[in-house]
Amino acid sequence: MTGFVSFVGSGPGDPELLTLKAVDRLRRADAVLFDDLSAGPILSHAGPGCDLVGVGKRAGRASPKQDHVSRLLVEYAQGGGRIVRLKSGDGGLFGRLEEELIALRAAGIPYEIIPGIASPFAAAAAAGIPLTRRLTARRVQFVTGHDAEGRLPPDLDLSALADPAACTVVFMGKRTFPALAAALIARGLPPDTPALLAEAVGTPEAASLRTTVAELAERLAGDVGHKPALILYGPLAEGD
Amino acid sequence: MTGFVSFVGSGPGDPELLTLKAVDRLRRADAVLFDDLSAGPILSHAGPGCDLVGVGKRAGRASPKQDHVSRLLVEYAQGGGRIVRLKSGDGGLFGRLEEELIALRAAGIPYEIIPGIASPFAAAAAAGIPLTRRLTARRVQFVTGHDAEGRLPPDLDLSALADPAACTVVFMGKRTFPALAAALIARGLPPDTPALLAEAVGTPEAASLRTTVAELAERLAGDVGHKPALILYGPLAEGD
Repeated sequence: MTGFVSFVGSGPGDPELLTLKAVDRLRRADAVLFDDLSAGPILSHAGPGCDLVGVGKRAGRASPKQDHVSRLLVEYAQGGGRIVRLKSGDGGLFGRLEEELIALRAAGIPYEIIPGIASPFAAAAAAGIPLTRRLTARRVQFVTGHDAEGRLPPDLDLSALADPAACTVVFMGKRTFPALAAALIARGLPPDTPALLAEAVGTPEAASLRTTVAELAERLAGDVGHKPALILYGPLAEGD
Repeated sequence: MTGFVSFVGSGPGDPELLTLKAVDRLRRADAVLFDDLSAGPILSHAGPGCDLVGVGKRAGRASPKQDHVSRLLVEYAQGGGRIVRLKSGDGGLFGRLEEELIALRAAGIPYEIIPGIASPFAAAAAAGIPLTRRLTARRVQFVTGHDAEGRLPPDLDLSALADPAACTVVFMGKRTFPALAAALIARGLPPDTPALLAEAVGTPEAASLRTTVAELAERLAGDVGHKPALILYGPLAEGD
């Protein structure tokens, strides 16, 4: 008897931002395969007999190869039962969800996808601001700040990212932000565009800083530390 | 004694996609001010003594003026107690959250913002796809398909929206999509770019259609009905 896999978005880390559906799937799970960033108190919803399997991916550290994670997931599912694949934030946003879906389909294993709170929404809420301004907001964009080698992706659409009317959220972009900011300013983004650095969103170590694009680029030119972070910039609302 | 307002994102409509924090705030609320789209079973978490106040905004119908909603919220909060302002999806994404925050600040009323599952995440999950493709995904963008008068916003950044490498999600854009698609194709977006129409996301009436940008524009040139919808286009993954 083949098992069933629930891909569950765990949200940004705050256990209170789990959905009811996520809690239900964790409670009924026979095994949970989790990323480091979705661990901690969230796993306490799993029952005492549940296998908890870390397949950790943490910012700035070596992590298991993706094909190993997909293979492990298939093996657990082939063993039967209810498997939860817990992914931080929303698993479909800059995660490796697609590889795992393809592996399950190839193995004929049924699955469902349960969305989670993506970190930009938690970062804006914690800063007391909406992601979009009233009436004037037309566009919000999320972009990855590094490619598989940790560099600024060479194929970014810089003119889209330099639009001062859009709210832009950069994922995993602390190290590359000085280079990105220089490219954006060269394309016409005003250096004093409001920016927000949100570190360790949804965790007890959460910290945020209101600044500008140019000042943030300067600050991130040195040691950026190991906390995962989001960078928001654009016509941000006034915060608390 | 002034009250306290919790802005709560209710998610796309599926009551199981409420967060634990949202349920907690609803349970303890003395009054809930809700939009039509966040109503139904979600409100059953409120206690028997709670005032339930509809301040409905529904696609295609006249709705109370925003300043009336802000005033009502301030009045409830000035009456004391715990007030929940329930907003569908995530309240900070193309909602009118900012107006309400400003009204509360002006009145000296404290508040918190609790994020919710935004509808694009639920639409992609229901279609069995991630919002972003593996490795190649660099950018996701959300855009409003109409302005306050119901027309295609004249100040859209069309070159950003015509990028075939980005996943784009158009909110409230069924009526204006034929005009938008024509403009995008004129800017170089391939007519056969994959598209997904997701109607009534997160509700029992949910329906989705996989098609292309050009075919969807043709289909939406006639009667589009009254179901709220999202349109996704770009390098969408293969669905179920």
